[in-house]
Amino acid sequence: MPKISSKGLNMPQSPIRKLAPFADRAIEEGKKIFFLNIGQPDISTPKAALDAVKNNNLDILSYSPSSGFDSYKKKLAKYYVENGIDIEADDLIVTTGGSEALLFTMGSITDPGDEVIIPEPFYANYNGFAVASGVVVKPVESKFEDNFALPSISEFEKQITEKTKAIIICNPGNPTGYLYTKDEIQKLADLAIKHDLFIVADEVYREFVYDGEEHHSIMSLPELKNHAIMVDSVSKRYSMCGARIGCMVSKNKELIATALKFAQARLSPPTFAQIASEAALDTKKDYFIEVNEEYKSRRDTLIEALEDIKGVKVAKPKGAFYCVAELPVEDSEDFAKWMLSEFDLNGETVMVAPAAGFYSTPHTGMNQIRIAYVIEKQNLLKAVAILKMALQAYTKR
Amino acid sequence: MPKISSKGLNMPQSPIRKLAPFADRAIEEGKKIFFLNIGQPDISTPKAALDAVKNNNLDILSYSPSSGFDSYKKKLAKYYVENGIDIEADDLIVTTGGSEALLFTMGSITDPGDEVIIPEPFYANYNGFAVASGVVVKPVESKFEDNFALPSISEFEKQITEKTKAIIICNPGNPTGYLYTKDEIQKLADLAIKHDLFIVADEVYREFVYDGEEHHSIMSLPELKNHAIMVDSVSKRYSMCGARIGCMVSKNKELIATALKFAQARLSPPTFAQIASEAALDTKKDYFIEVNEEYKSRRDTLIEALEDIKGVKVAKPKGAFYCVAELPVEDSEDFAKWMLSEFDLNGETVMVAPAAGFYSTPHTGMNQIRIAYVIEKQNLLKAVAILKMALQAYTKR
Ligand SMILES: Cc1ncc(COP(=O)(O)O)c(C=O)c1O
Ligand SMILES: Cc1ncc(COP(=O)(O)O)c(C=O)c1O
Repeated sequence: MPKISSKGLNMPQSPIRKLAPFADRAIEEGKKIFFLNIGQPDISTPKAALDAVKNNNLDILSYSPSSGFDSYKKKLAKYYVENGIDIEADDLIVTTGGSEALLFTMGSITDPGDEVIIPEPFYANYNGFAVASGVVVKPVESKFEDNFALPSISEFEKQITEKTKAIIICNPGNPTGYLYTKDEIQKLADLAIKHDLFIVADEVYREFVYDGEEHHSIMSLPELKNHAIMVDSVSKRYSMCGARIGCMVSKNKELIATALKFAQARLSPPTFAQIASEAALDTKKDYFIEVNEEYKSRRDTLIEALEDIKGVKVAKPKGAFYCVAELPVEDSEDFAKWMLSEFDLNGETVMVAPAAGFYSTPHTGMNQIRIAYVIEKQNLLKAVAILKMALQAYTKR
Repeated sequence: MPKISSKGLNMPQSPIRKLAPFADRAIEEGKKIFFLNIGQPDISTPKAALDAVKNNNLDILSYSPSSGFDSYKKKLAKYYVENGIDIEADDLIVTTGGSEALLFTMGSITDPGDEVIIPEPFYANYNGFAVASGVVVKPVESKFEDNFALPSISEFEKQITEKTKAIIICNPGNPTGYLYTKDEIQKLADLAIKHDLFIVADEVYREFVYDGEEHHSIMSLPELKNHAIMVDSVSKRYSMCGARIGCMVSKNKELIATALKFAQARLSPPTFAQIASEAALDTKKDYFIEVNEEYKSRRDTLIEALEDIKGVKVAKPKGAFYCVAELPVEDSEDFAKWMLSEFDLNGETVMVAPAAGFYSTPHTGMNQIRIAYVIEKQNLLKAVAILKMALQAYTKR
């Protein structure tokens, strides 16, 4: 029997999907599950985006240009300019989700054996893309106690070697909800320039910022012209995860020309989804204001309810729609499995994402979980009530 | 300035896109171009597929499962069973185009430095996916004189080393149009088993077979259970290249489980496109019969016209919608550029794909071009007439 590659064997399983078999069994047993584990928003997709697809009059569903439709690229560039990011259509490549933008980025700037530095905990699939690209992730731990603020620059410098090619950040963060300050972004920029590294900012949650805070894009610093790469996506912004449209943005021409070769090999991003994404750009500010109010109020509800549970602590998120909570358990994965397989409150239980899978350093974040607040407040409250009872029962076993 | 990766520098440019700047300039100068260079069919997408998307009533465009919607997977498995390929829904992963199926396959079975053997000329983007995966392509030359039939097995064996992980074939072939015989598939199967290699068959043109010939899928040989991987796509079958839906099929459970980890990292294939692809499966046999009659008659028209030009030879294709022609020139790329930049017949010219880019061995196929017969017969004839005049003018320069 021919062998699977080491790459394939080392490919991590997403921590979000890891418990799926336990959830499937719970559902089979008739349990109702509140899903706090996935980042699939329950917010409606803007009607204009859906209608544009319904009203399309294509006769032949052809390949689009590899870097995306010109009309979409131009309108997207305009959106960025309006958001204080001074780019042109040619500075971006439309990708199949932010996921593909991350893959093209890794391919364009790293070779097998190279290293990237990422503050942990981080979006777990960075690990997957790193393994797929043969790249080694060097984590720098951000602390729960600091709400996962940027670790000190000296911690980054300790990890820099000859093989370091880039620093990757997620802003606002998944799973942390942390929003980097202007000062932190500036420190990262100085570091990238000092060591001549790329700095990749995953800004797919850029529009989800609360408490009147401001988002500081990596693209806003002119001195990073050749160093900054932004990854973005329509998935969360317009609640259209199933579209599979993202983009990769950089003012480094050589980099974009390189990424374009990866884009050409896979021919084109999806056509219907580009039609939807282009129409979505007409979404009124009102939509975002409403959506953000909803998320903010969910966040507040969730955190208040969580902090009400004895022994539970929460790192307060300023953006995105996740938070990391510390539980009074030793192994949150065991607890999460137990909630699915052994526990229920009147036939209902809760699914959470154990946070260890978001750390690269083994045995870190073992007592933490990530909660996504993408369900209605009433259900959030129910879910937290169940979690509370579950914690009591679990610790008493 | 931070450095582009060697991978990025080595990433080949698609031979089909290489001449695009020359074409752009020709268009700017007001020339009309007949495009014989790209495999974008002009055939209408089945109405049922387009209508399914128009009539969708999604409110939230969510992620689909990473391996694709269950309903689509089941219906797709049924399609294969009806086509003599005995698989179940769990033997397949829905991918973002056949392109992504190729990437997942490479990732699952090769590590950087590993080798794959491919009969050349081959679909040029195999090179791109190989470079992206850090894999070395070892070509085995198939001969124009044999219409690009399978090279002798001893030629394959000469290329096998410790690092060889797979043989990749394309059946029917792009750019060759060659259709492997049952006997050839059996020989490849024996070879794969003897050396315990994977055998990857890109069958995206499976439905395009002419002259009453039969297509022999790699999946039809039970002894290849653990060795065979099929790559497929809706792009050409239903003329829906812009959908970006393909699939990877294998009865090797460990392989599919591995590829699924790559699929999970990128979250999901596009939702609208899966809706279209599922509906496309209801396309009646009539559609294919009509489409195949159209392609066959174009092929016959094209080849007759080409063979009528002095010094031009054609390798007769039995499937797909490409053919490779030998021209009485030394460097077909130079000729192709010249046609775009220096030549026109009453303001019209022709764009072809130089075939050297489909070979991995340098300086091979230098006098060959690939022609895609995806335009109407009348235009095909006009294009060949222009080509004929261009050849006369070019050789007389
Ligand atoms: C931080 C982050 N980056 C990127 C992605 C990828 O999203 P997509 O490929 O849907 O754009 C996600 C999805 O959850 C994410 O949370
Ligand atoms: C032989 C072959 N394989 C794979 C593909 C990839 O097609 P897609 O990604 O659109 O499915 C193509 C497209 O031209 C092709 O010719």
